[in-house]
Amino acid sequence: MRATVMYAAGDVRIENVPDARLIEPTDAVVTVTHACICGSDLWPYKTMEHSDRGRVMGHEAIGVVESVGTDVRTIKAGDLVVMPFAYSDGTCVFCRAGLQTSCIHGGFFGNEEVAGAQAEAVRIPQADGTLFALPVGRDDALAASLLTLSDVMGTGHHAAVAAKVGPGKTVAVVGDGAVGLCGVIAARRLGAERIIMLGRHADRIALAGEFGATDVVSERGEEAIERVRELTGGFGVHSVLECVGLEQSMLTALNIARPGGAVGRVGVPQNETLPAAQPTFYGNITIAGGPAPVRAYIEELLPDVLEGRIEPGRVFDRVTNLDGVPDGYRAMNERESLKVMVKP
Amino acid sequence: MRATVMYAAGDVRIENVPDARLIEPTDAVVTVTHACICGSDLWPYKTMEHSDRGRVMGHEAIGVVESVGTDVRTIKAGDLVVMPFAYSDGTCVFCRAGLQTSCIHGGFFGNEEVAGAQAEAVRIPQADGTLFALPVGRDDALAASLLTLSDVMGTGHHAAVAAKVGPGKTVAVVGDGAVGLCGVIAARRLGAERIIMLGRHADRIALAGEFGATDVVSERGEEAIERVRELTGGFGVHSVLECVGLEQSMLTALNIARPGGAVGRVGVPQNETLPAAQPTFYGNITIAGGPAPVRAYIEELLPDVLEGRIEPGRVFDRVTNLDGVPDGYRAMNERESLKVMVKP
Repeated sequence: MRATVMYAAGDVRIENVPDARLIEPTDAVVTVTHACICGSDLWPYKTMEHSDRGRVMGHEAIGVVESVGTDVRTIKAGDLVVMPFAYSDGTCVFCRAGLQTSCIHGGFFGNEEVAGAQAEAVRIPQADGTLFALPVGRDDALAASLLTLSDVMGTGHHAAVAAKVGPGKTVAVVGDGAVGLCGVIAARRLGAERIIMLGRHADRIALAGEFGATDVVSERGEEAIERVRELTGGFGVHSVLECVGLEQSMLTALNIARPGGAVGRVGVPQNETLPAAQPTFYGNITIAGGPAPVRAYIEELLPDVLEGRIEPGRVFDRVTNLDGVPDGYRAMNERESLKVMVKP
Repeated sequence: MRATVMYAAGDVRIENVPDARLIEPTDAVVTVTHACICGSDLWPYKTMEHSDRGRVMGHEAIGVVESVGTDVRTIKAGDLVVMPFAYSDGTCVFCRAGLQTSCIHGGFFGNEEVAGAQAEAVRIPQADGTLFALPVGRDDALAASLLTLSDVMGTGHHAAVAAKVGPGKTVAVVGDGAVGLCGVIAARRLGAERIIMLGRHADRIALAGEFGATDVVSERGEEAIERVRELTGGFGVHSVLECVGLEQSMLTALNIARPGGAVGRVGVPQNETLPAAQPTFYGNITIAGGPAPVRAYIEELLPDVLEGRIEPGRVFDRVTNLDGVPDGYRAMNERESLKVMVKP
């Protein structure tokens, strides 16, 4: 089958690889109908050291179940499924607590050990726990939004939950990528009264506005902090969604939270320490979040997608087949594209 | 009047200072019946640079209201009151949210601007918001425990609340000082099933056991982390109360929290950054806490003190008059004493 293999920073190739197949009796094999490129794929795209073996990339997909192992009980061939970016058994103590990204038998797609979904097909470990069978047929009108349930919409929701967004709250979203934009959707959905988007790209800001952002701050660093404070009576916001992961964005996030506020972080941290240990202490700022247990959120978010109340699929601004994936990485890396959908 | 003045690290003197008096119409003056020395007073005792003016020390007291300003409405002369370590107006947006330590018109006792309570009397700004009038007369049997409501018991409770302690949870307490010991009381009171005390002082560990600690870990650093993991099936604990504030103790706290767990920090951080940004991200560990709004907690904790269900006053192992205060600092700094009560 054909798949996307990354060998080093900037080196993404479409190659023939061995077909995805059942290995464990708890596996399923899914034919990928829609996958995509993630902002987090850009980290290895910028920094990955050369690997002879390469990584089959991609951790977001919807598709049709092709075959299942002998121990798979709830998922069956022919099901249209969402594949969350992490696999999980669905039964361990962490899965039962709704934290599937810490599953004892779980892991992540798209690395040297577990192949990813920017491919014609993908092997799904722990299929019963991992996959979510959709109660609808293949419907291209909804496919884009359903696809976001595999990562970015669930991740934006997780940031909002971790940041304690609720009715009447003032919220800031740091980062205008696909996750940040889904964070705007999530914040509005959870009842936020005011949503301040921190970002600088005109098209993304425009989309944020359509998703529910009420204010835009395009300054950076100290100036951004000042501007958010001006907009909030000097206090800062109740909830900050940190959707980048850089030291500077986290510093901004921590400094625009008001006393007693919370920062929900979903941007993968690129530094070993968190800044502002003392100001966040004196302000009783809560820092929460991490890899989103998107599997836990599909059930909650799905009705809003199916009934059109939220349209996270609008974050896709380009569609390609597998041949176009290397250029899709380039385009996202150069901020020419917001998020690329892949129809293998 | 006589008061405790610190001029530099290790330089604590009992001196005659101008009498505490009403300055603002919202002030009260309180005759101190019981004050104490706090673990946090040991930071300036170790590090304070010389000040010609000095600091009148002390931020914990109970006492009798001597006089009130013309704008004071709810507090009156003769009231027996608890003085929380922070003053607060009781009416601002943060006070109404129960975060009096971020009061817009608030501040802290025992610095160069606002004199402290290791003295015969103390001026209380924002008396209506700050003071809590006790529904009991002067009762020496309860005085010690009532005194802890001004800081250490409320602070231990705050750590437990920030760490999301609840029924059935496994909790670890980092630090066996007075706050850590009150954290044990708080964790048990909130229903924790298992409470692991990390500490090395035999007498304090014994008291922790009487307060409800079920396990003791006396190792430090990596060994302490290993030991807590061994005790918890390899996962770590649901809730960690960080009651020290040093980099090493925070690192331990963050590493013994299980995925999805929370660290409630009340030890004043001595470093500018928080360690373990990445492991805490991958584990979805929540970091919360800060200066405890003890004023908010008095109402909840007081009945348990009055009815003897909790006895936080047992953290005091020495009582002195003002003359003994300098030696009290020395004794606490050398870990000869756990916590010193001062009866001016």
